[in-house]
Amino acid sequence: MESTITKISIDEIMDMEKRYRATFINSITGYKSVSLIGTMDKNGQTNLSIFNSIVHLGAHPPLIGMVVRPDSVDRHTLQNIEDTGYYTINNIKPSYVKKAHQTSARYPKEVSEFEAVGLTTEFKDGFFAPYVGESSVKFGLQFKEKVPFNINNTLFVIGQIQEIYLPKNIVQDDGFVDLHAASSVTNSGLDSYHVVLKGKRFPYAKP
Amino acid sequence: MESTITKISIDEIMDMEKRYRATFINSITGYKSVSLIGTMDKNGQTNLSIFNSIVHLGAHPPLIGMVVRPDSVDRHTLQNIEDTGYYTINNIKPSYVKKAHQTSARYPKEVSEFEAVGLTTEFKDGFFAPYVGESSVKFGLQFKEKVPFNINNTLFVIGQIQEIYLPKNIVQDDGFVDLHAASSVTNSGLDSYHVVLKGKRFPYAKP
Repeated sequence: MESTITKISIDEIMDMEKRYRATFINSITGYKSVSLIGTMDKNGQTNLSIFNSIVHLGAHPPLIGMVVRPDSVDRHTLQNIEDTGYYTINNIKPSYVKKAHQTSARYPKEVSEFEAVGLTTEFKDGFFAPYVGESSVKFGLQFKEKVPFNINNTLFVIGQIQEIYLPKNIVQDDGFVDLHAASSVTNSGLDSYHVVLKGKRFPYAKP
Repeated sequence: MESTITKISIDEIMDMEKRYRATFINSITGYKSVSLIGTMDKNGQTNLSIFNSIVHLGAHPPLIGMVVRPDSVDRHTLQNIEDTGYYTINNIKPSYVKKAHQTSARYPKEVSEFEAVGLTTEFKDGFFAPYVGESSVKFGLQFKEKVPFNINNTLFVIGQIQEIYLPKNIVQDDGFVDLHAASSVTNSGLDSYHVVLKGKRFPYAKP
């Protein structure tokens, strides 16, 4: 499939048509962690949104970060996280990937994306934010900090994991969670979703 | 493969053995963008390190961010990025995934991981930092900003793309880059690498 390698300069990137450039630049950074974020406002209105910018920040305490664009559909999610302090992160399986993608539409605040796309709201043990019933690996977080990136007016939202739900038999003896067994998908670019094959693990590397 | 879903509380997470917890928490956030970062110090000493915390920050200008732990093997990479202002991000293919993983070993500063693991240093058109010759999708960045996350002493490093190299025929008409055609792998946890199937794209979502 590969042909000669082509160089694309920064001038060519800046000259690209806006949507072409967004698609192109979003694609080249590699496969991404793609999840559904569940929130609820103080009046009980639920919200669900797809994010592909979730990164591991630390394990002790367990901290997760994500990039948020305040001017996008992410804003209801961000507002609920800041107002209530809680959110959930839920994996995406092939059986509902189309519904998950549909949460990226700009629904008005009074519409719950759970209902609009047909995914199940699941409340667990008094945790404030709703989980996705269909998800096999999901965790609840408490909002900790919002860090502004002034360079392009994005934000980094940091949360601490409070609880995790997953099938016990996908956790290996050393703590490794087999996402292939959990049927999690990955994504690339703005709109492409991919099934992932079983992984190959390597030992801890020493010089 | 799935069994009954189990709950794991924050107390159980904090009580886990240190390495078990690191493996566990690193796994649950989903598949990650995994790449090799190439740098060089002012004396011409090259460095190559694997990162799985790269995220898209914006397309106009094209900005990429990544989480760096200053106390880890990432420190030579960070030092070179700050000292020289330039670095490269290179995709990983199955044929050299073992070599890519081996760059995570704690080599002393005077050892080039390119040589130690057997990957090819590639300098292009006067760009300061070295590329990985074996990579099919790679781009050069200029360091822009370092943002500290005080909550756990990690850093977020932001760079702007200066040039991109990739096979022209993997770029689709709308700018989407087919990473399946590029043979890019993804990773999960600290040490698992996965081949990804061809993706399914969905149209721009509207309510």
